[in-house]
Amino acid sequence: MFNRYFEDFQTGDCWSSRGRTITETDLVSFAAWSGDWYPLHTDQEWARNTSYGQRIAHGMLVLSAAIGLTHLEPGTVAAFYGLDRVRFVAPTFIGDTIHVTYEFVEKQERENDGIVTAKLEVKKQTGQTVAAAVVKFLVNKCPVSQ
Amino acid sequence: MFNRYFEDFQTGDCWSSRGRTITETDLVSFAAWSGDWYPLHTDQEWARNTSYGQRIAHGMLVLSAAIGLTHLEPGTVAAFYGLDRVRFVAPTFIGDTIHVTYEFVEKQERENDGIVTAKLEVKKQTGQTVAAAVVKFLVNKCPVSQ
Amino acid sequence: MFNRYFEDFQTGDCWSSRGRTITETDLVSFAAWSGDWYPLHTDQEWARNTSYGQRIAHGMLVLSAAIGLTHLEPGTVAAFYGLDRVRFVAPTFIGDTIHVTYEFVEKQERENDGIVTAKLEVKKQTGQTVAAAVVKFLVNKCPVSQ
Amino acid sequence: MFNRYFEDFQTGDCWSSRGRTITETDLVSFAAWSGDWYPLHTDQEWARNTSYGQRIAHGMLVLSAAIGLTHLEPGTVAAFYGLDRVRFVAPTFIGDTIHVTYEFVEKQERENDGIVTAKLEVKKQTGQTVAAAVVKFLVNKCPVSQ
Amino acid sequence: MFNRYFEDFQTGDCWSSRGRTITETDLVSFAAWSGDWYPLHTDQEWARNTSYGQRIAHGMLVLSAAIGLTHLEPGTVAAFYGLDRVRFVAPTFIGDTIHVTYEFVEKQERENDGIVTAKLEVKKQTGQTVAAAVVKFLVNKCPVSQ
Amino acid sequence: MFNRYFEDFQTGDCWSSRGRTITETDLVSFAAWSGDWYPLHTDQEWARNTSYGQRIAHGMLVLSAAIGLTHLEPGTVAAFYGLDRVRFVAPTFIGDTIHVTYEFVEKQERENDGIVTAKLEVKKQTGQTVAAAVVKFLVNKCPVSQ
Repeated sequence: MFNRYFEDFQTGDCWSSRGRTITETDLVSFAAWSGDWYPLHTDQEWARNTSYGQRIAHGMLVLSAAIGLTHLEPGTVAAFYGLDRVRFVAPTFIGDTIHVTYEFVEKQERENDGIVTAKLEVKKQTGQTVAAAVVKFLVNKCPVSQ
Repeated sequence: MFNRYFEDFQTGDCWSSRGRTITETDLVSFAAWSGDWYPLHTDQEWARNTSYGQRIAHGMLVLSAAIGLTHLEPGTVAAFYGLDRVRFVAPTFIGDTIHVTYEFVEKQERENDGIVTAKLEVKKQTGQTVAAAVVKFLVNKCPVSQ
Repeated sequence: MFNRYFEDFQTGDCWSSRGRTITETDLVSFAAWSGDWYPLHTDQEWARNTSYGQRIAHGMLVLSAAIGLTHLEPGTVAAFYGLDRVRFVAPTFIGDTIHVTYEFVEKQERENDGIVTAKLEVKKQTGQTVAAAVVKFLVNKCPVSQ
Repeated sequence: MFNRYFEDFQTGDCWSSRGRTITETDLVSFAAWSGDWYPLHTDQEWARNTSYGQRIAHGMLVLSAAIGLTHLEPGTVAAFYGLDRVRFVAPTFIGDTIHVTYEFVEKQERENDGIVTAKLEVKKQTGQTVAAAVVKFLVNKCPVSQ
Repeated sequence: MFNRYFEDFQTGDCWSSRGRTITETDLVSFAAWSGDWYPLHTDQEWARNTSYGQRIAHGMLVLSAAIGLTHLEPGTVAAFYGLDRVRFVAPTFIGDTIHVTYEFVEKQERENDGIVTAKLEVKKQTGQTVAAAVVKFLVNKCPVSQ
Repeated sequence: MFNRYFEDFQTGDCWSSRGRTITETDLVSFAAWSGDWYPLHTDQEWARNTSYGQRIAHGMLVLSAAIGLTHLEPGTVAAFYGLDRVRFVAPTFIGDTIHVTYEFVEKQERENDGIVTAKLEVKKQTGQTVAAAVVKFLVNKCPVSQ
């Protein structure tokens, strides 16, 4: 889906990634790397006393993994432009398997390239959406058609 | 700044984090962990031939590190609610040192807590802004005042 | 507690950190990073036949995590001076949640700064102490009072 | 076994390493580092529907861990020359503890050193072989005897 | 190239991966994770006195990264069957950028699937081959044609 | 040196480990894993303005790496008992190569085992000592001689 030039994106097109199981390793590694040790992610005893009853993944972990599952193709996608309306709508627990879906909703042509806007949803194995956002990519035009 | 109850946030208040040098290790670790091996972040030869002339940090790396630098206080901040208008406005190179600044721009009271909205900017040692976003946190009210 | 100048430390003062759950990830990562693959930490079959019946965390893992939980403040704490009488007194198992407590026991003034000595204890969720040490920090004097 | 000069290797000699428990952390770390996210290693839901019924370790993870368990001695072993007939013959599951055995099968003398050929087997706690290979090391001659 | 069924592989076909810069982080991470701290990979002073004059990447690091660059497609490739004649023919230094090429050399049909044999070469930015092997994958037949 | 029973340790004996180059990766990984982001270790701009002029390794990083370089032998060394008089006496910079030396200074026999006390010194390639400590190991008696 992302190995296409600007001309070949159609609004309404969808794409769905492979899955990735979110593990305790991911929570520990992300807490460490990012420096965000908020106890809901890293302290089992503290998390036990919340409404979740257990540790949950960082919002930024889920969003970063989602972008990582997207596999942007260098020749066609030129840049990850930005994000809008990012909302963390349900918890991702240790052992949940997430994947990301895109629905392309808008194309904005520019002189040498174009901006493609998509609705991103991160879902888990139950079908529940855990995070949602609007994403904008800068996409190259087809070299021949320019 | 983030160890305060909803009542104690004032629009206009600012907060600035400590710094963190973004290293080659961070680029390699984030590419690996997230699965985003886009060559601008991971292939020195490829990056040499872009307008940047070198590898640059992933947008999500910069944003995740910024949230990690924020150190949310468990007792007062209840949740990281969402992000709006995330824009990656300048490259972060290997060896750049970033910090994050917040300016609180809006308070929205709810029955038992409140939403605090802030403008986040990630800046590097030169003073240049590399990423910007609007962030929303769910903040507890002071237990006494409820 | 650690964002204070030398003048503001009182012997008898205490400080307690947030908690951190020690995970299998931490044992594997620390074994790998440090190069200490002693089988009590890394070989489940071997550990099963010891009096512990399972893998236990490295002493240095517990001690390093404890220092990491301390969050020294750059402006006031000038250096981590040294450790005395470090003893590993009980095992930390995978899934235990540790925190660190400090009791300040001695102040030694010097011309431009001072040495603050504290008794450190690493405790787990059961209240049991797993490691103890005497720690010395070099602490700045208050700039105004010098 | 590997801290010997070429003259001291006898065909028929055997050597067996310590054990290492292969953890979920190892699968996640190896997938991330190598970039090989094949779902049999990283997606619990996908793996559940295979004949294995669960995630299994990457072949290259098992082989790399086996070489790591070998502890080549700098003064005597000069280089890891190559591998032949590498076969992944049974799955390594999360929680299995592997060790590696060597049987030396051939010595090939050269002017200044020699090539020692060994049959390597990676076995798990049940005794089952999970991987096998023929390995060749370049080994120094004894300095005195040259 | 690897998202094809057994019927669609032709001997003589070639495939080339994206590049990956091998960094000091990769050497340190692989030494740690695998436990192979041979000083040619991890001790700069020791390596300085070898004919290479500097640290070089582990053979297994290069080979594992090469398999990771291959991106096997779950639906078509069923298993990584084995490796033959693995040879490490030139050093990979910190800062080298490698990619992997495949040339398919043999197809062996079985009742329900087939074995595809390829010559793998890992090359660096200079065009030099650093490692070579013969690789065998188990590939599904096209579901329709069975 | 550490694959000996209690009876075979002699006061005055010495042992010296292989070397390990301390890299930027080690500083970043240890800061992340331990949670100790003190800016002298992680912020290049901040460190530039200190008397060191650059980032230096964490004391606990150096000490943990030293214990990791020791390679305790399971059959003979029963436990890492404790540490005394740990002092960080000189900075370890990125790129320094450390090794550890032990001098055995005391043996204390107990009914079924014994405590061996050693002076540990961590030195870098220049010969300078960067850390020192007194270490105590619990060592098994020779099974035959009991």
